[in-house]
Amino acid sequence: MATIVICSVNKTAQTTTRRCLSSHVRGLVSGDSGLLSSRSLLPSWRWFSRSSSVRLMSHGCRPAAGRSSRRGVLALGGAAAATAAAVVAGFLANSSHFQRAEMATRVSPNVEEKEADIVERCRGLMSPPVTDVKVLLGRKEEMRTKMELLVMETQAEFCKALQEVDGGTFRVDRWQRKEGGGGISCVMQDGKVFEKAGVNVSVVFGNLTEEAAKQMRSRGKVLKGKDGKLPFCAMGVSSVIHPKNPHIPTVHFNYRYFEIEEADGSKQWWFGGGTDLTPIYIDKEDAFHFHNTLKEACDKHHPQYYSDFKKWCDRYFYIRHRGETRGIGGIFFDDLDSPSQEEVFSFVKSCAQTVVPCYLPIVYRHLKDSFTDKEKDWQQVRRGRYVEFNLVYDRGVKFGLATPGSRIESILMSLPLTAKWEYMHEPAKGTREAEILEVLRTPKEWVKT
Amino acid sequence: MATIVICSVNKTAQTTTRRCLSSHVRGLVSGDSGLLSSRSLLPSWRWFSRSSSVRLMSHGCRPAAGRSSRRGVLALGGAAAATAAAVVAGFLANSSHFQRAEMATRVSPNVEEKEADIVERCRGLMSPPVTDVKVLLGRKEEMRTKMELLVMETQAEFCKALQEVDGGTFRVDRWQRKEGGGGISCVMQDGKVFEKAGVNVSVVFGNLTEEAAKQMRSRGKVLKGKDGKLPFCAMGVSSVIHPKNPHIPTVHFNYRYFEIEEADGSKQWWFGGGTDLTPIYIDKEDAFHFHNTLKEACDKHHPQYYSDFKKWCDRYFYIRHRGETRGIGGIFFDDLDSPSQEEVFSFVKSCAQTVVPCYLPIVYRHLKDSFTDKEKDWQQVRRGRYVEFNLVYDRGVKFGLATPGSRIESILMSLPLTAKWEYMHEPAKGTREAEILEVLRTPKEWVKT
Repeated sequence: MATIVICSVNKTAQTTTRRCLSSHVRGLVSGDSGLLSSRSLLPSWRWFSRSSSVRLMSHGCRPAAGRSSRRGVLALGGAAAATAAAVVAGFLANSSHFQRAEMATRVSPNVEEKEADIVERCRGLMSPPVTDVKVLLGRKEEMRTKMELLVMETQAEFCKALQEVDGGTFRVDRWQRKEGGGGISCVMQDGKVFEKAGVNVSVVFGNLTEEAAKQMRSRGKVLKGKDGKLPFCAMGVSSVIHPKNPHIPTVHFNYRYFEIEEADGSKQWWFGGGTDLTPIYIDKEDAFHFHNTLKEACDKHHPQYYSDFKKWCDRYFYIRHRGETRGIGGIFFDDLDSPSQEEVFSFVKSCAQTVVPCYLPIVYRHLKDSFTDKEKDWQQVRRGRYVEFNLVYDRGVKFGLATPGSRIESILMSLPLTAKWEYMHEPAKGTREAEILEVLRTPKEWVKT
Repeated sequence: MATIVICSVNKTAQTTTRRCLSSHVRGLVSGDSGLLSSRSLLPSWRWFSRSSSVRLMSHGCRPAAGRSSRRGVLALGGAAAATAAAVVAGFLANSSHFQRAEMATRVSPNVEEKEADIVERCRGLMSPPVTDVKVLLGRKEEMRTKMELLVMETQAEFCKALQEVDGGTFRVDRWQRKEGGGGISCVMQDGKVFEKAGVNVSVVFGNLTEEAAKQMRSRGKVLKGKDGKLPFCAMGVSSVIHPKNPHIPTVHFNYRYFEIEEADGSKQWWFGGGTDLTPIYIDKEDAFHFHNTLKEACDKHHPQYYSDFKKWCDRYFYIRHRGETRGIGGIFFDDLDSPSQEEVFSFVKSCAQTVVPCYLPIVYRHLKDSFTDKEKDWQQVRRGRYVEFNLVYDRGVKFGLATPGSRIESILMSLPLTAKWEYMHEPAKGTREAEILEVLRTPKEWVKT
């Protein structure tokens, strides 16, 4: 059911340009900066090579290519152009040209062009959006439309980048929620590189009780409903990737948006999300790259975001009964509803677009690392801890399991294919297993803040 | 650290007699029927052979032997007697002889003999009791002493029966709880027969807050403490056995006792417990044997016990988000505080003594069953469900994980060595995998009530 991306240099490069362009146009109209979509690519290139333009031109199996291929499918479908590589290089070398073009678009937005843009964006997804495209077109300025497209695109981008490195194909399941809405679950199991990779989108709506609404907000804000009922909509993309090789870390991300309508008709809305890494062994270069990429995305929106959300991440992904964090963190935030809806969306968009450049370079870097049985065993023990966190503490999982009508397979696809619980497993001092335990017990700063 | 039992026919048989004798003496003094300790052996013999006396004499690798060996270690230590086998046969053939002996003891209990009995009972345990033997001797009539000895003996009996069938040895860890008390965890991992076998005893005491005390009782009864504090003691034995062969089911049991002192000095006490089976495939003979053995133990105490506690078990071990029970049940009860402390203890004792005859015959029956990769895979998927129940719903685990000072490794030793989560695993119709799912979705009656 999933599309397999076979891309050529030309097609990929051209698509990247077109997507950046259309993204800029949309960005300026809606208030978020389309520049982010190109800037967020930079960290991974820099990480591999100081010469980003050269890296861009060669796109064998490197992350830049992974990302580009997403762009290709999302924006261009099957088209290709011989001159595209040069155009991309030009875009990066002279971005002011495109900034000027955006200014013009801002003054006179072309509605038809925007509609075509939504239809086109939907073409490259893993599946048509949960909401009918006609409905999306009818409310294209609303945040729930923008967010649904963003989560769908993030899913497609990430799945395609993973397919490219693995060689396998995602199984795509569309599902409906009786009470309203549904989702699209993409799972690749027992692949060449990935033991289990799940990327899930859900877009649900209906009515909440006041108690349930309170529980949904981490700050537990009281919301007043009409006859105790609160119409709501919630959407998000979430993913957990468990690779086979113990030298490739597990990654998790989740970006979500909530809207609740109170009795007086006013709307409460907020965003939440985060991306975090769970390595089996500490690799300082990986840790720096991951955190630095996130920091760069955060810094574009607020100088405090990375620092605050990094701490929040360490606090949230904490396995209390073990006295250790799940992994080496990343960022995590919830209940974000200021300074404005557009600005928070713009930040969330930056984060979502940073997933591939955060993770794929790490995957490629360790793709051919050899490993021992002992290392595989340690990975399985750490997988056990992952299960413990997800089943005992994770708010999303707990909420999902307790909510009638939830799609359990989508909620629990975050669990690894295999896990192990060895009684009293305690690594010997001085080993690499002991090294990571120390980090998990006392979270570290990986980049200067 | 663990004692390995090497027993001969003579030694074993003699010990069994001596234990039964001393058990009767104690039983009559304290009000519980020592006869239970011999009667509870019957179901497993009958299951293997209608000729229990013959079975008793041959004790190769059969459960009766497993049970006998426990008795040997518990009561006799290193001693042996040439005539013991005949004595055991005589005991069973003519139990009235011993009943008369008990009558005499009842009239004139010999305190010294009873003290020696406690000391002797402690010799065969996996480790000395949690409470110092001198302390136990000082309060030998109290329920907490009797219960501590029962849970310790149950641990030893079960561990030794498992060691006998596996050939491996339990690792024995004594641990202390800073706030008061401690425990003894016995774990055998990656054995020949058992993937992971854990048998844990804990005996803890201290002060509870009123809120915590309320949570401890399933009925949430309000208890009044002095300055909000309630002195309590809690003890129990709990065990989960995960075999390697998918045709040998997982078993779990737990028997526990609580005492809480209220502000006015009055004591609240109650017992809880149960034994339940989690097969990977349905085997009707196993299911009948398991439930029937439990029913026979229950029926000796109350005609409603089995029926009520079987239903309670099905309700308790229910994985709500999957819409299925964890296994094929057994019995489960909590908050049992009537008709009298001695009568409930007597019932709990019957249940505890039924663990080996419930389970070991099933282990031996399937010991040499061959299995396919597909069957092993299904076992791993079911193991995943086991983890889900234990981490998401099990009250004991949740309470333990949330309680500061808990020994996490002892709480989580119930988790299997390995488990698997396959996305959308759904067995094909008509398969043996589908057969058990059907049973788990609609619990069955295995014996007539």
